[in-house]
Amino acid sequence: MNRRMVIYTLGILLDIEAVLMLLPAAVSFMFGELRTGAMLVVASGAAAMVGTLGLFLCRKHDRTIYAKEGFVIVSLAWLAMTLFGALPFVFAGELGFVDAIFEIASGFTTTGASIITDLDKISRGLMFWRSFTHWIGGMGVLVLMMAILPSDTDGSVHILKAEMPGPTFGKLVPKLRKTAMILYLIYIGISATEAILLMCGGLNLYEALIYTFGTAGTGGFGLKGDSLTTYTPYVQWVIAIFMMLFGVNFNLYYLALMGKVKSAVKSRELWLYLSIIAVSICIVGFHIRTLYTNFGDTVRTSTFQVASIVTTTGYSTADFDSWNGVAKGMLFLLYFVGGCAGSTAGGIKISRLILLGKTIRRDLRHMVHPHSVGVVKFEGKRVSDQTLNGVTSFFLLYCAILAGVFLLLSVFEPSVNVETNLTATMATLNNVGPGFGKVGPYLSYAFYSPFSKLALTLSMLFGRLEIYPLILILSPNTWKRR
Amino acid sequence: MNRRMVIYTLGILLDIEAVLMLLPAAVSFMFGELRTGAMLVVASGAAAMVGTLGLFLCRKHDRTIYAKEGFVIVSLAWLAMTLFGALPFVFAGELGFVDAIFEIASGFTTTGASIITDLDKISRGLMFWRSFTHWIGGMGVLVLMMAILPSDTDGSVHILKAEMPGPTFGKLVPKLRKTAMILYLIYIGISATEAILLMCGGLNLYEALIYTFGTAGTGGFGLKGDSLTTYTPYVQWVIAIFMMLFGVNFNLYYLALMGKVKSAVKSRELWLYLSIIAVSICIVGFHIRTLYTNFGDTVRTSTFQVASIVTTTGYSTADFDSWNGVAKGMLFLLYFVGGCAGSTAGGIKISRLILLGKTIRRDLRHMVHPHSVGVVKFEGKRVSDQTLNGVTSFFLLYCAILAGVFLLLSVFEPSVNVETNLTATMATLNNVGPGFGKVGPYLSYAFYSPFSKLALTLSMLFGRLEIYPLILILSPNTWKRR
Repeated sequence: MNRRMVIYTLGILLDIEAVLMLLPAAVSFMFGELRTGAMLVVASGAAAMVGTLGLFLCRKHDRTIYAKEGFVIVSLAWLAMTLFGALPFVFAGELGFVDAIFEIASGFTTTGASIITDLDKISRGLMFWRSFTHWIGGMGVLVLMMAILPSDTDGSVHILKAEMPGPTFGKLVPKLRKTAMILYLIYIGISATEAILLMCGGLNLYEALIYTFGTAGTGGFGLKGDSLTTYTPYVQWVIAIFMMLFGVNFNLYYLALMGKVKSAVKSRELWLYLSIIAVSICIVGFHIRTLYTNFGDTVRTSTFQVASIVTTTGYSTADFDSWNGVAKGMLFLLYFVGGCAGSTAGGIKISRLILLGKTIRRDLRHMVHPHSVGVVKFEGKRVSDQTLNGVTSFFLLYCAILAGVFLLLSVFEPSVNVETNLTATMATLNNVGPGFGKVGPYLSYAFYSPFSKLALTLSMLFGRLEIYPLILILSPNTWKRR
Repeated sequence: MNRRMVIYTLGILLDIEAVLMLLPAAVSFMFGELRTGAMLVVASGAAAMVGTLGLFLCRKHDRTIYAKEGFVIVSLAWLAMTLFGALPFVFAGELGFVDAIFEIASGFTTTGASIITDLDKISRGLMFWRSFTHWIGGMGVLVLMMAILPSDTDGSVHILKAEMPGPTFGKLVPKLRKTAMILYLIYIGISATEAILLMCGGLNLYEALIYTFGTAGTGGFGLKGDSLTTYTPYVQWVIAIFMMLFGVNFNLYYLALMGKVKSAVKSRELWLYLSIIAVSICIVGFHIRTLYTNFGDTVRTSTFQVASIVTTTGYSTADFDSWNGVAKGMLFLLYFVGGCAGSTAGGIKISRLILLGKTIRRDLRHMVHPHSVGVVKFEGKRVSDQTLNGVTSFFLLYCAILAGVFLLLSVFEPSVNVETNLTATMATLNNVGPGFGKVGPYLSYAFYSPFSKLALTLSMLFGRLEIYPLILILSPNTWKRR
């Protein structure tokens, strides 16, 4: 383990977080919330101090890192960012420590599950900060670091691999830094378009940014307890469409920008993603038709909710917990799907589901024809056995963590029913946000005990970092000195 | 595909079923239920006729079979047995066709889910038949065939492999026929002991046999709507202990009988099985303690229910659907565990869970040390990559079928809630029987529509045959002539 390099990188990261916190501080001051603004500055100062100390202490370091260091940096970075990101809430006295940790982890991991029962009691600066963390967490703060700093580290690719969602990581261009930059530029571009469209719909800049952050990161934090239910159809449509856009693999946008629209459109993952959305909208729409007086409302609500769950955003325009068995059952399954790999969405990811399906087919073929050589192809390329093993292991760990967190919740919460505990686990592990029952779309996670909140926080981090990094820092082997 | 051999074997099997049906017919006549008895004889005659026709038409056949034929024989055998086994209910006019199929599939697959709302309306001969199918299905009818017929078929091992539960199949002795015979002798021995102990507790022979069949096959059919709630503590304890005994790998009993108690007790699977049971009893017991006035009742109820779910039997001595979150959540997880491989229990099986865990660990190690050679050992022996791939594929298919059946139920049943549909799927796929909500321990599956009942029937067969055989008969490749 190259510890000095790990600490050095964490130092840079905390400094970046310190700078990012100044934006919500500015918002606070603009709204005249002097106390909140001051506390954001204090928290920013704390992050900057610790970060700079790390930089200073480990300024001399071996710059080579391997897969192991990549995982360690990413998991410690996310834990540290959550810790410092929670401080403003605590300093300003608006949330307790565990609640603040839960809320900001929910922000960074783009989950959108909230423990705040009355959103009006939170200052606007902190509302901005929690939504801003969606935007930061969506594309990843380490990707941001790579994009803005001149990187001359051997093996930085391991950091990107560990932070980017999906089973494989493909560099867009030979230079890693340029890849990160392109990703962020596309991200900023689509986000800006959404914000402008929302402002055209009558939202002010503050509101438009809050909802853009929530959509772009596929997070789900908003300004109201009933999410987007009371907003105009125009705003709902804009958000529904942008949720779907942010669930697409960003590599495809890059291909399209490079003029290779044809190869972008050929993506199997994209087609399955769109097919799942289309089929789900039809099924859900058909079964909620009696709840709405006109066709337009039915289509809009069904489209919005399907897009929101499949992309793991978690916004809602209706209390879907009260829908009938079919519509709710359909959403229940969508919790697991998630968007495309290389998007900001959580969940298992469509490309993983495709690879899992292909693995099954290969093994079945092998069973009937024991001497067949099973080659699995995806998007025209051969997939290595190592990648396939990685995907199945991911899925196994995913199931184990789902069962483990559910068990913890069950043990901590004797009075909460299975539906609530199960969907709370699913909603956090898949970074969706709301579940069914007591954690339904119009409700909050406030009633959970501190232990359960920490278990759910871990579940969110497992979901966003796709499990491996957090598992590996628990192994003593990882920490051995080189 | 060696079609003649397949048809020939199916012929033998139907003849065996015809003979087995004469036992409930005799019971009917003894109880003076002439009509039911006659109908059982008619159904037996039909099975015998079709079976003998198959034998006659394909008496000349190539005796060699491969893995493919093994899978085909097992899946067609189970489908045919279910079909003919359902006839007596239909002929006697006691159940409709779909209901009879569901009920008898539930019997053979040792699920124990019932669509009968009033058990008192069913004649005693047919009650006996449906319980008897638990006993037949528990150890497997093809295993029975091997045990009683002089087998000189090359590759019969493929049939046993396809029917016996668990990731691997180990012959006890070099001769396959003797292996099958030993398994059945152990099965009969433990069953007889249970029946005698139950009769010591005041049950008459008929009752004792019904509950012995239900326990031995880890099935769950009984005589009363509230299962075993009103029976004496002695009877409940006997059944609880025997459920646990039937959840143990039968190979261990053989080892113990051969005097190799030490190697039997060394089994990792056995220890994990007992540990899971012990921990679950403590957790469940602690959380239901307020429902009972004395310690003995609490321990008995908790032991009984944990044993019943983990072995996928499905008997109950309490309405566990009304328990609190912890106790219910614990049971929810136990639905997936299942007993040991090579037992009569359903579910994923403990040895598979161990192998899944070891696969995860191997892949994690590989991630940190890319050049490590990952050898997985289980019960002192090296496990081949092929076996590990088989286990992960099984688990993937298992999840896919769970999701698929749940989706079908959701679409067929708009008015049923997610908890009921989800646990109904789990309870059938794992061959447990009762679920939560509308399919709770004191209720029945009667309210489901015919389509849903067929989907659940398929789910039970998938669970008992461990998926592969049924998947493979759907592939056109399987049916190609050699």
